[in-house]
Amino acid sequence: MSARRSTPAAEAASGAADPRADRSRTLAERLRLIVVTDAGLAAPRSVQDVVAEALQAGAPAVQLRDKRAPARELLRLGRTLGALTHEAGALFFVNDRLDVALALGADGVHVGPEDLPVAAVRAAAPKGFLIGCSADDAEVAARAVADGADYIGCGTVFRTSTKADAGSPIGTKGLDRVARSVSVPVVGIGGITPDRMREVAATAAAGVALVGAVMGARDVGAVVRAVLGAWAR
Amino acid sequence: MSARRSTPAAEAASGAADPRADRSRTLAERLRLIVVTDAGLAAPRSVQDVVAEALQAGAPAVQLRDKRAPARELLRLGRTLGALTHEAGALFFVNDRLDVALALGADGVHVGPEDLPVAAVRAAAPKGFLIGCSADDAEVAARAVADGADYIGCGTVFRTSTKADAGSPIGTKGLDRVARSVSVPVVGIGGITPDRMREVAATAAAGVALVGAVMGARDVGAVVRAVLGAWAR
Repeated sequence: MSARRSTPAAEAASGAADPRADRSRTLAERLRLIVVTDAGLAAPRSVQDVVAEALQAGAPAVQLRDKRAPARELLRLGRTLGALTHEAGALFFVNDRLDVALALGADGVHVGPEDLPVAAVRAAAPKGFLIGCSADDAEVAARAVADGADYIGCGTVFRTSTKADAGSPIGTKGLDRVARSVSVPVVGIGGITPDRMREVAATAAAGVALVGAVMGARDVGAVVRAVLGAWAR
Repeated sequence: MSARRSTPAAEAASGAADPRADRSRTLAERLRLIVVTDAGLAAPRSVQDVVAEALQAGAPAVQLRDKRAPARELLRLGRTLGALTHEAGALFFVNDRLDVALALGADGVHVGPEDLPVAAVRAAAPKGFLIGCSADDAEVAARAVADGADYIGCGTVFRTSTKADAGSPIGTKGLDRVARSVSVPVVGIGGITPDRMREVAATAAAGVALVGAVMGARDVGAVVRAVLGAWAR
């Protein structure tokens, strides 16, 4: 089922109940590509269909994001997505809502500047629960790590239309600077497409988070393989 | 500071760090009036100012509700409100977001039909954490109680303009029916004003939750005293 795995140990680990227990790959390796959901961009396909294709092609992480959905709807969506994601041995994150993430048995939550601060999440979350935090500069990233963030989502790297409030792009130079400044994996986000992956993969970033490039792709599998291939340098 | 308290035991309990530990009053007594926040209705006054007045007049519970505020803003608002509320020996609830409630050290969370289900909240919440659940009929209320709800918010009792999606009013008959059907306190909500309290207090409900009647009141203290007085039958 998981073409990307090359070792028997990893194959064996894919059957584990808790993907966080997969010690055969580092967290950085498991964050090479985070597929972030967007129902509008996935339409007319369902988010589930797009995510299933991405997982099939080897995407190692999925983040459920839907700023407009009430908690009950997120829970409903997340039950299907979380099951799909965990069956594929990938990590499952929920954007913003720690409570929904906990209710879903997700591996972690991703928080941004309008969400709960990392320290508050860390205090309320169980041991081993992963916390991602958005940061567009080294100072914000350092504070997030000090407060307990396990990875940094760094951007906007390139100009994008999927996040209206994204601010001005930091470019791959900005991404590289942040990635070199902290000890945890840094994942670039914002406007990243397969044809820009060579430039992104040349930075110190561990991975990328994609919204539009995957959700809006005609051939989801091809995008995922191209992005994962770019890291295999 | 708290004129409503009549016994030395209650006075002593008001200094306790955790208002849930106040065993001198039953939960039903502490839910006689839940003041639900609404920044728009409080304007031009701040929600904090209105809540402070309500607490001063003896309101035994406050619920922070702001469907549009991101978590970070809820946390900021909630820190002030929670401190005010706990200083007054009252219970502090957060609407919808269990994660924000936990981060604030609130006494409980209130969930409605679009929020996390009671069972999911109960599974993720610490022991003793209070859960309120909206229900407009006995069947929904019974399920919520079976899943772990500590009280029921029941309504819409009367037609109201503060909740656009409120559905058709159940009246005091509907409220009474639900209140008699479950073992936990039932709190009427929706369109309740001081001049309707005689009718409401004649039901089996334990208390009321007020939004507009307190937030939009010229004399907040007078409204709170009138409502609390109506229960002293």
